Amino acid sequence: MDLNADLGEGFGRWTLTDDEALLSVVTSANVACGFHAGDPATMRRVCEGAAVRGVRIGAQVSYRDLAGFGRRAMDVPRVELAAELTYQMGALEVFARAAGAGVAYVKPHGALYNRAVADEEQAAAVVNAVTAFARAFGRELPVLGLPGSALLRLAAAAGLPTVAEAFADRAYTPAGTLVPRTQAGAVLHEPDAVVAQALAITVRGEAATVTGAKVPVAADSLCLHGDTPGAAALARRVRAALESAGVAIGAFA
Amino acid sequence: MDLNADLGEGFGRWTLTDDEALLSVVTSANVACGFHAGDPATMRRVCEGAAVRGVRIGAQVSYRDLAGFGRRAMDVPRVELAAELTYQMGALEVFARAAGAGVAYVKPHGALYNRAVADEEQAAAVVNAVTAFARAFGRELPVLGLPGSALLRLAAAAGLPTVAEAFADRAYTPAGTLVPRTQAGAVLHEPDAVVAQALAITVRGEAATVTGAKVPVAADSLCLHGDTPGAAALARRVRAALESAGVAIGAFA
Amino acid sequence: MDLNADLGEGFGRWTLTDDEALLSVVTSANVACGFHAGDPATMRRVCEGAAVRGVRIGAQVSYRDLAGFGRRAMDVPRVELAAELTYQMGALEVFARAAGAGVAYVKPHGALYNRAVADEEQAAAVVNAVTAFARAFGRELPVLGLPGSALLRLAAAAGLPTVAEAFADRAYTPAGTLVPRTQAGAVLHEPDAVVAQALAITVRGEAATVTGAKVPVAADSLCLHGDTPGAAALARRVRAALESAGVAIGAFA
Amino acid sequence: MDLNADLGEGFGRWTLTDDEALLSVVTSANVACGFHAGDPATMRRVCEGAAVRGVRIGAQVSYRDLAGFGRRAMDVPRVELAAELTYQMGALEVFARAAGAGVAYVKPHGALYNRAVADEEQAAAVVNAVTAFARAFGRELPVLGLPGSALLRLAAAAGLPTVAEAFADRAYTPAGTLVPRTQAGAVLHEPDAVVAQALAITVRGEAATVTGAKVPVAADSLCLHGDTPGAAALARRVRAALESAGVAIGAFA
Repeated sequence: MDLNADLGEGFGRWTLTDDEALLSVVTSANVACGFHAGDPATMRRVCEGAAVRGVRIGAQVSYRDLAGFGRRAMDVPRVELAAELTYQMGALEVFARAAGAGVAYVKPHGALYNRAVADEEQAAAVVNAVTAFARAFGRELPVLGLPGSALLRLAAAAGLPTVAEAFADRAYTPAGTLVPRTQAGAVLHEPDAVVAQALAITVRGEAATVTGAKVPVAADSLCLHGDTPGAAALARRVRAALESAGVAIGAFA
Repeated sequence: MDLNADLGEGFGRWTLTDDEALLSVVTSANVACGFHAGDPATMRRVCEGAAVRGVRIGAQVSYRDLAGFGRRAMDVPRVELAAELTYQMGALEVFARAAGAGVAYVKPHGALYNRAVADEEQAAAVVNAVTAFARAFGRELPVLGLPGSALLRLAAAAGLPTVAEAFADRAYTPAGTLVPRTQAGAVLHEPDAVVAQALAITVRGEAATVTGAKVPVAADSLCLHGDTPGAAALARRVRAALESAGVAIGAFA
Repeated sequence: MDLNADLGEGFGRWTLTDDEALLSVVTSANVACGFHAGDPATMRRVCEGAAVRGVRIGAQVSYRDLAGFGRRAMDVPRVELAAELTYQMGALEVFARAAGAGVAYVKPHGALYNRAVADEEQAAAVVNAVTAFARAFGRELPVLGLPGSALLRLAAAAGLPTVAEAFADRAYTPAGTLVPRTQAGAVLHEPDAVVAQALAITVRGEAATVTGAKVPVAADSLCLHGDTPGAAALARRVRAALESAGVAIGAFA
Repeated sequence: MDLNADLGEGFGRWTLTDDEALLSVVTSANVACGFHAGDPATMRRVCEGAAVRGVRIGAQVSYRDLAGFGRRAMDVPRVELAAELTYQMGALEVFARAAGAGVAYVKPHGALYNRAVADEEQAAAVVNAVTAFARAFGRELPVLGLPGSALLRLAAAAGLPTVAEAFADRAYTPAGTLVPRTQAGAVLHEPDAVVAQALAITVRGEAATVTGAKVPVAADSLCLHGDTPGAAALARRVRAALESAGVAIGAFA
């Protein structure tokens, strides 16, 4: 099982994620590329830290929205959005390669991630960006996203590898989708609950829903959040619990 | 003789340079990389236009200063500045490569260009960025700059190719440096004067100074400005005049 | 009849609107406040020009989106959006007052204008911002918008004066709404057609629709666009035609 | 003695200063105005908190530099800089007034503060902005700055009230100026040393220099820093120590 988390989500004077601590836990680092967070010096440092530890580097691409941390959906036309995402991927590639690695996958951030679940145009923009990157650098990057999303469907249709992602700390509906953040109970705050869900997803391929019923959840990668106090400690607990349960932790294939 | 001009200096709704017209005149395009101008969609379009015409693509890197168009010197610490420039170069590289070409050289923009003439720290930041890019992509990019500048000196010391640039429309001092823009007569506005200086520099390797005396001017590349009304027409006149005088126009070696 | 146009829509090195020419035509100037366009020095200059000519100054408030010129709808939460709009109104107020005038009305720009037609939350955010401004400066600013919009409805419900706006150069549907820009024929480009529609709206209170039928159009203010080549000349023609037809031109009551 | 601190220095998702805690300690709040930090929703919240507690609201104006937190000196031309500062002051004024107060003074932030110590042009820009604000709102705002600075000198020459500021946690030179941050020992980190210097300045009007000698330090306001861990606790200790020593704490006259 792959463990991913958002890293490098500071900007200049501001820090958010405990990058050093998280790099020792995850196998895939979603690195902010400067549009919702992530100044260039931070990108370089996180890439270097990831490369040294063998952590995979992913482009956490976003809307251009520092003030909203990329959490406000934007109606960006497809061609324009694709160019903005390509730009971010190129900017990260130079730091990843200079560190001896390279961008290994793409995961849209925040509102773009959510929007690409159902919005075909914006999902296509992400795919177009990955395709442009492939034309440039000769590598087709896997796309991380929600199983059943327009994003993963269009990525697969374009011949790109896809990586199904599940969330240790988000509540699932009986339909297997995420409970919207606007609803109570959408986010699991209790560490024990997070650990339990991580185990349920990775060991049994299912999650307990808000109704108590079980729902199957496919996962090639498990998302751990890094932008809250105690995030790194909780991530370590999740990893330890998975390892104790005999789950092999490693980057997705 | 190489002819270079700044291209892609619009941003979103705003346009500045007549990119299409200039691409049919110059042999090297200094493409704005998003920090002083140049949104991603424009970068992609200019790269495609340049690649189709065989025009060389250069990274016109800048301070992060959209409001000031990169013309306000900033005291950015070296490590931070190097990362910001590397970021821009990576962002341009993906568009240049996707268009079938690649970034072929680097030219700092505006206040950074001027600052790098004498400021060793900032000149070193440019060199550091080029070195990081080389580590990433295996190519050492030539650095375009003013002969005698700290930038070209440090670039040469780091083993990078350097390209000496001269200006068809800037007045020269008897010492062979540029008359500062704050002084009257610093910019040649009269088309005939610009053409005459272009010929003097390329054919005779000299420029007439404000005092009337001649001063030797070394030039591997001649800069034509693209951000004023009539710029494209004037650039065409300069190129035609050089060709009539038997000057071979082509990208620098 | 009031004539309004967007002014000051440059940013730093970039210019868009011919502010000087438009100030001699319109009676109300929608001044960009820095979020989609409009740097502070431009805001000051436009306010001074408007005050000298007795042109009313309006706050053309927008999403924070320089790269998209405020034309990309954004899901900004109400409280956050209200604060962003209040900020812009305060920033314009200081320049308007220093010029001897004061902000006289508010008109949302671009995507926010369109969104506030039906989105109750965002319309309420505009109203909240106007209310905060009133609490600060003791003046309830009129809100310019589309007749029938959520914006004007909520503004009226809050006791704010409202100003119904019609468009000389936008095609109307038989329902009296604007033909979306994504449809062919949405914008009238032919000067004669623009002049004819301006006359029809102001003199007869109606517009010809795409089907040829007439539809009633209420208008306290007529919007003239300023961001296209020839915009100022066309605005002058419209004003002259209205005056020839006996329409009294003056700021809304 | 007035106690001032920088507040509201977060931006969107990022926080930095413990605004609530500091508001219960200081008598003057330097509120970030959006150019180096300080989103509009934060500005509103801090203004409301300050007004409720009777804490004076100051405009902490800055260069336009979110990425550098306003700590990178910029060569902004005077007229342009004055407009940018006026804009920030107007934006804060609307929140301050809506909260029942009003902007009560101006203090430049970071690199602009340092630059205005000796740079006559930039110091004049600050004064010009205060003058524009006075023309707009009929109030001449006091200017907080370093005794002996060009800023306070030009402000006084323009007839503006000036407020001499001293620093509890910065080392002083024998000449009575601040030890530059680039030198070791420039910042006092030890709480006891900070408290001792606060007492020395306020009670005896002097500070111990790096050489051990005493130097006279004039102070109408004492600056406490708010952007470090433990800052609020230290500020509380300083205030308690001053009060124990019989120093009356209150906003400057």
